[in-house]
Amino acid sequence: MQDQTIGSWLEELGSSAPAPGGGAAAALEVAMGAALVEMVCNLTIGKPAYAEHEETMTAVRERAEMIRREALGLAAEDASAFSAVIAAYKLPRGTDDENEARSAQIQAALAVAADVPRRTAAAASEVLDLAERIVPGGNVNVISDAAAAAGAARGALTSAEVNVDANRSSITDPALRDELDAVLVSIARDLARADEIVAAVRERMAG
Amino acid sequence: MQDQTIGSWLEELGSSAPAPGGGAAAALEVAMGAALVEMVCNLTIGKPAYAEHEETMTAVRERAEMIRREALGLAAEDASAFSAVIAAYKLPRGTDDENEARSAQIQAALAVAADVPRRTAAAASEVLDLAERIVPGGNVNVISDAAAAAGAARGALTSAEVNVDANRSSITDPALRDELDAVLVSIARDLARADEIVAAVRERMAG
Repeated sequence: MQDQTIGSWLEELGSSAPAPGGGAAAALEVAMGAALVEMVCNLTIGKPAYAEHEETMTAVRERAEMIRREALGLAAEDASAFSAVIAAYKLPRGTDDENEARSAQIQAALAVAADVPRRTAAAASEVLDLAERIVPGGNVNVISDAAAAAGAARGALTSAEVNVDANRSSITDPALRDELDAVLVSIARDLARADEIVAAVRERMAG
Repeated sequence: MQDQTIGSWLEELGSSAPAPGGGAAAALEVAMGAALVEMVCNLTIGKPAYAEHEETMTAVRERAEMIRREALGLAAEDASAFSAVIAAYKLPRGTDDENEARSAQIQAALAVAADVPRRTAAAASEVLDLAERIVPGGNVNVISDAAAAAGAARGALTSAEVNVDANRSSITDPALRDELDAVLVSIARDLARADEIVAAVRERMAG
Protein backbone atom coordinates (compact mmCIF):
# COMPACT_ATOMS: atom_id res chain seq x y z
CA MET A 1 0.00 0.00 0.00
CA GLN A 2 2.88 2.30 0.97
CA ASP A 3 4.29 2.33 -2.59
CA GLN A 4 0.98 2.41 -4.43
CA THR A 5 -0.23 5.68 -5.96
CA ILE A 6 -3.22 7.30 -4.29
CA GLY A 7 -5.21 7.21 -7.54
CA SER A 8 -4.71 3.50 -8.19
CA TRP A 9 -5.40 2.58 -4.57
CA LEU A 10 -8.69 4.52 -4.64
CA GLU A 11 -9.57 2.76 -7.89
CA GLU A 12 -9.03 -0.64 -6.20
CA LEU A 13 -10.94 0.49 -3.11
CA GLY A 14 -13.95 1.26 -5.30
CA SER A 15 -13.72 -1.93 -7.35
CA SER A 16 -15.54 -5.19 -6.71
CA ALA A 17 -12.34 -6.75 -5.31
CA PRO A 18 -13.13 -7.66 -1.69
CA ALA A 19 -9.88 -6.03 -0.48
CA PRO A 20 -8.95 -3.25 -0.02
CA GLY A 21 -12.18 -2.34 1.76
CA GLY A 22 -13.25 -0.61 4.95
CA GLY A 23 -10.40 -2.18 6.92
CA ALA A 24 -7.70 -0.74 4.67
CA ALA A 25 -9.50 2.62 4.58
CA ALA A 26 -9.46 2.63 8.39
CA ALA A 27 -5.73 1.90 8.44
CA LEU A 28 -5.11 4.86 6.12
CA GLU A 29 -7.30 7.08 8.32
CA VAL A 30 -5.15 6.15 11.33
CA ALA A 31 -2.00 6.96 9.34
CA MET A 32 -3.47 10.32 8.25
CA GLY A 33 -4.46 11.17 11.82
CA ALA A 34 -0.95 10.34 13.03
CA ALA A 35 0.62 12.43 10.24
CA LEU A 36 -1.56 15.45 11.08
CA VAL A 37 -0.46 15.21 14.71
CA GLU A 38 3.17 15.08 13.54
CA MET A 39 2.60 18.17 11.40
CA VAL A 40 1.29 20.20 14.35
CA CYS A 41 4.31 19.10 16.42
CA ASN A 42 6.71 19.99 13.58
CA LEU A 43 5.21 23.48 13.31
CA THR A 44 5.43 24.02 17.08
CA ILE A 45 8.90 22.67 17.87
CA GLY A 46 11.58 25.38 17.74
CA LYS A 47 9.12 28.30 18.08
CA PRO A 48 10.22 30.40 21.11
CA ALA A 49 6.57 31.18 22.01
CA TYR A 50 5.98 27.45 22.58
CA ALA A 51 9.27 26.58 24.24
CA GLU A 52 7.60 25.24 27.39
CA HIS A 53 5.71 22.64 25.27
CA GLU A 54 8.78 21.49 23.35
CA GLU A 55 9.29 18.32 25.37
CA THR A 56 5.69 17.16 24.92
CA MET A 57 5.77 17.95 21.20
CA THR A 58 8.98 16.00 20.65
CA ALA A 59 7.66 12.94 22.50
CA VAL A 60 4.29 13.06 20.73
CA ARG A 61 5.90 13.49 17.32
CA GLU A 62 8.09 10.43 17.83
CA ARG A 63 5.16 8.23 18.75
CA ALA A 64 2.96 9.64 15.95
CA GLU A 65 5.61 8.91 13.36
CA MET A 66 5.78 5.31 14.57
CA ILE A 67 2.00 4.90 14.34
CA ARG A 68 1.95 6.43 10.86
CA ARG A 69 4.50 3.87 9.69
CA GLU A 70 2.85 0.91 11.41
CA ALA A 71 -0.74 1.70 10.40
CA LEU A 72 -0.33 0.74 6.77
CA GLY A 73 0.77 -2.74 7.85
CA LEU A 74 -2.72 -3.23 9.28
CA ALA A 75 -4.20 -2.78 5.81
CA ALA A 76 -2.09 -5.67 4.50
CA GLU A 77 -3.06 -7.85 7.46
CA ASP A 78 -6.71 -7.01 6.92
CA ALA A 79 -6.51 -8.20 3.30
CA SER A 80 -4.81 -11.50 4.20
CA ALA A 81 -7.14 -12.16 7.15
CA PHE A 82 -10.10 -11.60 4.83
CA SER A 83 -8.71 -14.03 2.23
CA ALA A 84 -8.26 -16.67 4.94
CA VAL A 85 -11.94 -16.37 5.94
CA ILE A 86 -13.06 -16.76 2.30
CA ALA A 87 -10.75 -19.78 1.85
CA ALA A 88 -12.09 -21.43 5.01
CA TYR A 89 -15.70 -21.05 3.81
CA LYS A 90 -14.68 -22.77 0.56
CA LEU A 91 -13.38 -25.92 2.33
CA PRO A 92 -15.25 -29.14 1.40
CA ARG A 93 -18.40 -30.10 3.29
CA GLY A 94 -19.98 -33.53 3.37
CA THR A 95 -18.61 -36.03 5.89
CA ASP A 96 -18.76 -35.22 9.62
CA ASP A 97 -14.97 -34.93 9.65
CA GLU A 98 -15.00 -32.46 6.78
CA ASN A 99 -17.76 -30.38 8.33
CA GLU A 100 -15.99 -30.26 11.67
CA ALA A 101 -12.64 -29.33 10.14
CA ARG A 102 -14.30 -26.62 8.04
CA SER A 103 -16.13 -25.11 11.01
CA ALA A 104 -12.95 -25.07 13.09
CA GLN A 105 -11.03 -23.41 10.25
CA ILE A 106 -13.76 -20.79 9.77
CA GLN A 107 -13.78 -19.95 13.47
CA ALA A 108 -9.98 -19.68 13.58
CA ALA A 109 -9.97 -17.39 10.53
CA LEU A 110 -12.75 -15.21 11.97
CA ALA A 111 -10.84 -14.79 15.23
CA VAL A 112 -7.83 -13.50 13.27
CA ALA A 113 -10.06 -11.29 11.10
CA ALA A 114 -11.70 -9.72 14.17
CA ASP A 115 -8.28 -9.01 15.62
CA VAL A 116 -7.28 -6.59 12.83
CA PRO A 117 -10.08 -4.01 13.41
CA ARG A 118 -9.45 -4.38 17.14
CA ARG A 119 -5.82 -3.37 16.64
CA THR A 120 -6.84 -0.63 14.20
CA ALA A 121 -9.18 0.74 16.87
CA ALA A 122 -6.35 0.61 19.42
CA ALA A 123 -4.06 2.56 17.07
CA ALA A 124 -6.85 5.12 16.40
CA SER A 125 -7.33 5.44 20.14
CA GLU A 126 -3.66 6.22 20.54
CA VAL A 127 -3.90 8.90 17.83
CA LEU A 128 -6.65 10.47 19.96
CA ASP A 129 -4.34 10.34 23.01
CA LEU A 130 -1.66 12.17 21.04
CA ALA A 131 -4.09 14.74 19.61
CA GLU A 132 -5.38 15.40 23.12
CA ARG A 133 -1.86 16.01 24.40
CA ILE A 134 -1.08 18.68 21.79
CA VAL A 135 -4.33 20.68 22.03
CA PRO A 136 -3.18 22.95 24.90
CA GLY A 137 0.35 23.71 23.63
CA GLY A 138 0.36 23.19 19.85
CA ASN A 139 0.98 26.19 17.57
CA VAL A 140 -2.42 27.91 17.55
CA ASN A 141 -2.09 28.77 13.83
CA VAL A 142 -2.27 25.08 12.90
CA ILE A 143 -4.15 23.66 15.87
CA SER A 144 -7.14 23.06 13.58
CA ASP A 145 -5.12 20.12 12.24
CA ALA A 146 -5.29 18.43 15.67
CA ALA A 147 -9.08 18.41 15.19
CA ALA A 148 -8.66 17.07 11.65
CA ALA A 149 -6.47 14.31 13.15
CA ALA A 150 -9.18 13.42 15.67
CA GLY A 151 -11.75 13.38 12.85
CA ALA A 152 -9.63 11.00 10.77
CA ALA A 153 -9.05 8.70 13.76
CA ARG A 154 -12.80 8.76 14.40
CA GLY A 155 -13.41 7.57 10.84
CA ALA A 156 -11.12 4.61 11.52
CA LEU A 157 -13.01 3.85 14.74
CA THR A 158 -16.34 3.77 12.88
CA SER A 159 -14.96 1.35 10.34
CA ALA A 160 -13.44 -0.83 13.09
CA GLU A 161 -16.74 -0.78 14.97
CA VAL A 162 -18.80 -2.19 12.09
CA ASN A 163 -16.09 -4.69 11.19
CA VAL A 164 -15.87 -6.04 14.74
CA ASP A 165 -19.66 -6.16 14.72
CA ALA A 166 -19.72 -8.09 11.44
CA ASN A 167 -17.18 -10.68 12.59
CA ARG A 168 -18.69 -11.01 16.05
CA SER A 169 -22.03 -12.19 14.69
CA SER A 170 -20.41 -15.29 13.09
CA ILE A 171 -18.16 -16.17 16.04
CA THR A 172 -19.40 -18.97 18.30
CA ASP A 173 -16.80 -18.90 21.12
CA PRO A 174 -18.56 -17.10 24.01
CA ALA A 175 -15.28 -15.85 25.54
CA LEU A 176 -14.22 -14.23 22.28
CA ARG A 177 -17.68 -12.73 21.81
CA ASP A 178 -17.42 -11.17 25.28
CA GLU A 179 -14.01 -9.77 24.43
CA LEU A 180 -15.39 -8.21 21.25
CA ASP A 181 -18.28 -6.71 23.22
CA ALA A 182 -15.70 -5.00 25.44
CA VAL A 183 -13.92 -3.71 22.32
CA LEU A 184 -17.22 -2.22 21.07
CA VAL A 185 -17.72 -0.44 24.40
CA SER A 186 -14.25 1.04 24.26
CA ILE A 187 -14.77 2.15 20.62
CA ALA A 188 -18.03 3.90 21.60
CA ARG A 189 -16.13 5.75 24.33
CA ASP A 190 -13.42 6.80 21.85
CA LEU A 191 -16.00 8.06 19.32
CA ALA A 192 -17.30 10.44 21.99
CA ARG A 193 -13.75 11.38 22.99
CA ALA A 194 -12.91 12.35 19.39
CA ASP A 195 -15.83 14.81 19.43
CA GLU A 196 -14.59 16.25 22.72
CA ILE A 197 -11.13 16.82 21.24
CA VAL A 198 -12.64 18.67 18.26
CA ALA A 199 -14.66 20.83 20.68
CA ALA A 200 -11.54 21.60 22.73
CA VAL A 201 -9.66 22.63 19.59
CA ARG A 202 -12.49 24.93 18.49
CA GLU A 203 -12.54 26.48 21.94
CA ARG A 204 -8.81 27.15 21.79
CA MET A 205 -9.18 28.65 18.28
CA ALA A 206 -11.94 30.94 19.52
CA GLY A 207 -9.36 32.29 21.94
CA MET B 1 -1.80 13.93 -5.43
CA GLN B 2 -3.42 11.30 -7.70
CA ASP B 3 -0.01 10.02 -8.90
CA GLN B 4 1.85 10.32 -5.61
CA THR B 5 2.54 7.19 -3.57
CA ILE B 6 0.60 6.83 -0.33
CA GLY B 7 3.81 6.59 1.69
CA SER B 8 5.38 9.77 0.31
CA TRP B 9 2.12 11.72 0.61
CA LEU B 10 1.79 10.72 4.27
CA GLU B 11 5.40 11.77 4.79
CA GLU B 12 4.61 15.25 3.37
CA LEU B 13 1.39 15.44 5.38
CA GLY B 14 3.40 14.91 8.57
CA SER B 15 6.19 17.34 7.61
CA SER B 16 6.42 21.00 8.54
CA ALA B 17 5.37 21.99 4.99
CA PRO B 18 2.13 23.95 5.43
CA ALA B 19 0.44 21.92 2.63
CA PRO B 20 -0.71 19.19 2.41
CA GLY B 21 -2.57 19.60 5.70
CA GLY B 22 -6.06 19.05 7.04
CA GLY B 23 -7.66 20.30 3.82
CA ALA B 24 -5.92 17.72 1.66
CA ALA B 25 -6.63 15.01 4.23
CA ALA B 26 -10.32 15.95 4.06
CA ALA B 27 -10.29 15.70 0.27
CA LEU B 28 -8.81 12.20 0.50
CA GLU B 29 -11.43 11.22 3.09
CA VAL B 30 -14.17 12.31 0.67
CA ALA B 31 -12.54 10.25 -2.10
CA MET B 32 -12.29 7.22 0.21
CA GLY B 33 -15.93 7.55 1.24
CA ALA B 34 -16.99 7.76 -2.40
CA ALA B 35 -14.86 4.72 -3.29
CA LEU B 36 -16.37 2.65 -0.46
CA VAL B 37 -19.86 3.52 -1.72
CA GLU B 38 -18.80 2.43 -5.21
CA MET B 39 -17.50 -0.86 -3.82
CA VAL B 40 -20.81 -1.69 -2.14
CA CYS B 41 -22.63 -0.90 -5.43
CA ASN B 42 -20.19 -3.05 -7.41
CA LEU B 43 -20.74 -6.01 -5.08
CA THR B 44 -24.54 -5.62 -5.28
CA ILE B 45 -25.07 -5.03 -9.01
CA GLY B 46 -25.69 -8.27 -10.91
CA LYS B 47 -26.70 -10.30 -7.84
CA PRO B 48 -30.19 -11.78 -8.47
CA ALA B 49 -31.14 -11.36 -4.79
CA TYR B 50 -30.72 -7.59 -5.15
CA ALA B 51 -32.21 -7.17 -8.64
CA GLU B 52 -34.85 -4.71 -7.46
CA HIS B 53 -32.11 -2.35 -6.20
CA GLU B 54 -30.05 -2.52 -9.41
CA GLU B 55 -31.21 0.82 -10.76
CA THR B 56 -30.40 2.69 -7.54
CA MET B 57 -27.00 1.00 -7.30
CA THR B 58 -26.06 1.89 -10.87
CA ALA B 59 -27.05 5.54 -10.43
CA VAL B 60 -25.26 5.82 -7.07
CA ARG B 61 -22.13 4.17 -8.41
CA GLU B 62 -21.90 6.61 -11.30
CA ARG B 63 -22.16 9.63 -9.04
CA ALA B 64 -19.74 8.16 -6.47
CA GLU B 65 -17.13 7.52 -9.13
CA MET B 66 -17.40 11.14 -10.23
CA ILE B 67 -16.98 12.42 -6.67
CA ARG B 68 -13.99 10.14 -6.11
CA ARG B 69 -12.27 11.59 -9.18
CA GLU B 70 -13.15 15.21 -8.38
CA ALA B 71 -12.28 15.12 -4.69
CA LEU B 72 -8.52 15.00 -5.18
CA GLY B 73 -8.74 18.24 -7.16
CA LEU B 74 -9.90 19.94 -3.96
CA ALA B 75 -6.61 19.02 -2.30
CA ALA B 76 -4.68 20.85 -5.02
CA GLU B 77 -6.97 23.89 -4.73
CA ASP B 78 -6.54 23.88 -0.97
CA ALA B 79 -2.76 24.04 -1.33
CA SER B 80 -2.84 26.92 -3.83
CA ALA B 81 -5.47 28.87 -1.85
CA PHE B 82 -3.29 28.51 1.23
CA SER B 83 -0.20 29.78 -0.64
CA ALA B 84 -2.17 32.80 -1.84
CA VAL B 85 -3.09 33.72 1.76
CA ILE B 86 0.54 33.45 2.86
CA ALA B 87 1.67 35.57 -0.12
CA ALA B 88 -0.94 38.25 0.66
CA TYR B 89 0.24 38.50 4.28
CA LYS B 90 3.79 39.05 2.96
CA LEU B 91 2.83 42.09 0.84
CA PRO B 92 4.56 45.35 1.86
CA ARG B 93 3.07 47.53 4.59
CA GLY B 94 3.88 51.18 5.23
CA THR B 95 2.04 53.76 3.18
CA ASP B 96 -1.76 53.97 3.40
CA ASP B 97 -2.00 52.74 -0.18
CA GLU B 98 0.17 49.71 0.58
CA ASN B 99 -1.76 48.86 3.73
CA GLU B 100 -5.07 49.12 1.93
CA ALA B 101 -3.93 47.01 -1.01
CA ARG B 102 -2.52 44.39 1.34
CA SER B 103 -5.73 44.18 3.40
CA ALA B 104 -7.85 43.84 0.27
CA GLN B 105 -5.56 41.13 -1.06
CA ILE B 106 -5.67 39.23 2.25
CA GLN B 107 -9.47 39.38 2.37
CA ALA B 108 -9.75 38.18 -1.24
CA ALA B 109 -7.36 35.29 -0.57
CA LEU B 110 -9.21 34.32 2.63
CA ALA B 111 -12.53 34.25 0.75
CA VAL B 112 -11.05 31.79 -1.75
CA ALA B 113 -9.42 29.77 1.03
CA ALA B 114 -12.73 29.49 2.91
CA ASP B 115 -14.44 28.32 -0.27
CA VAL B 116 -12.37 25.11 -0.52
CA PRO B 117 -13.48 23.57 2.81
CA ARG B 118 -17.01 24.68 1.99
CA ARG B 119 -16.91 22.70 -1.26
CA THR B 120 -15.19 19.79 0.49
CA ALA B 121 -18.05 19.77 3.00
CA ALA B 122 -20.57 19.80 0.14
CA ALA B 123 -18.86 16.82 -1.48
CA ALA B 124 -18.77 14.96 1.87
CA SER B 125 -22.45 15.73 2.29
CA GLU B 126 -23.14 14.16 -1.08
CA VAL B 127 -21.20 11.04 -0.09
CA LEU B 128 -23.56 10.82 2.90
CA ASP B 129 -26.56 11.11 0.53
CA LEU B 130 -25.18 8.24 -1.54
CA ALA B 131 -24.37 6.08 1.50
CA GLU B 132 -27.90 6.68 2.79
CA ARG B 133 -29.39 5.53 -0.51
CA ILE B 134 -27.57 2.19 -0.50
CA VAL B 135 -28.19 1.20 3.13
CA PRO B 136 -31.57 -0.48 2.48
CA GLY B 137 -30.65 -2.41 -0.68
CA GLY B 138 -26.85 -2.87 -0.68
CA ASN B 139 -25.41 -6.41 -0.45
CA VAL B 140 -25.73 -7.16 3.25
CA ASN B 141 -22.35 -8.97 3.29
CA VAL B 142 -20.54 -5.71 2.58
CA ILE B 143 -23.00 -3.16 3.92
CA SER B 144 -20.55 -2.42 6.76
CA ASP B 145 -18.57 -0.53 4.10
CA ALA B 146 -21.45 1.96 3.73
CA ALA B 147 -20.88 2.81 7.41
CA ALA B 148 -17.12 3.06 6.80
CA ALA B 149 -17.95 5.47 3.93
CA ALA B 150 -20.08 7.62 6.25
CA GLY B 151 -17.27 7.59 8.82
CA ALA B 152 -14.71 8.76 6.24
CA ALA B 153 -17.04 11.52 4.99
CA ARG B 154 -17.57 12.56 8.60
CA GLY B 155 -13.81 12.93 9.04
CA ALA B 156 -13.79 15.29 6.05
CA LEU B 157 -16.65 17.28 7.58
CA THR B 158 -14.74 17.73 10.84
CA SER B 159 -11.70 19.01 9.00
CA ALA B 160 -13.87 21.35 6.88
CA GLU B 161 -15.60 22.61 10.01
CA VAL B 162 -12.41 23.71 11.75
CA ASN B 163 -10.99 25.15 8.53
CA VAL B 164 -14.09 27.24 7.85
CA ASP B 165 -13.92 28.31 11.48
CA ALA B 166 -10.27 29.30 11.18
CA ASN B 167 -10.80 31.37 8.03
CA ARG B 168 -14.03 32.92 9.27
CA SER B 169 -12.32 34.54 12.24
CA SER B 170 -10.03 36.62 9.95
CA ILE B 171 -12.75 37.60 7.46
CA THR B 172 -14.18 41.11 7.86
CA ASP B 173 -17.02 41.08 5.26
CA PRO B 174 -20.21 40.57 7.33
CA ALA B 175 -22.10 38.95 4.41
CA LEU B 176 -19.38 36.35 3.92
CA ARG B 177 -19.21 35.72 7.67
CA ASP B 178 -22.96 35.06 7.68
CA GLU B 179 -22.59 32.67 4.76
CA LEU B 180 -19.87 30.77 6.61
CA ASP B 181 -22.07 30.59 9.72
CA ALA B 182 -24.71 28.91 7.57
CA VAL B 183 -22.06 26.46 6.30
CA LEU B 184 -21.14 25.60 9.89
CA VAL B 185 -24.80 24.90 10.71
CA SER B 186 -25.14 22.60 7.74
CA ILE B 187 -21.88 20.79 8.65
CA ALA B 188 -23.17 20.22 12.20
CA ARG B 189 -26.32 18.70 10.74
CA ASP B 190 -24.28 16.42 8.47
CA LEU B 191 -22.06 15.25 11.36
CA ALA B 192 -25.20 14.02 13.11
CA ARG B 193 -26.52 12.51 9.89
CA ALA B 194 -23.31 10.48 9.44
CA ASP B 195 -23.87 8.93 12.87
CA GLU B 196 -27.46 8.09 11.92
CA ILE B 197 -26.27 6.30 8.77
CA VAL B 198 -23.81 4.22 10.81
CA ALA B 199 -26.62 3.33 13.23
CA ALA B 200 -28.90 2.33 10.32
CA VAL B 201 -26.18 0.10 8.87
CA ARG B 202 -25.61 -1.61 12.22
CA GLU B 203 -29.35 -2.17 12.54
CA ARG B 204 -29.49 -3.78 9.11
CA MET B 205 -26.46 -5.96 9.96
CA ALA B 206 -28.12 -7.10 13.20
CA GLY B 207 -30.94 -8.49 11.36
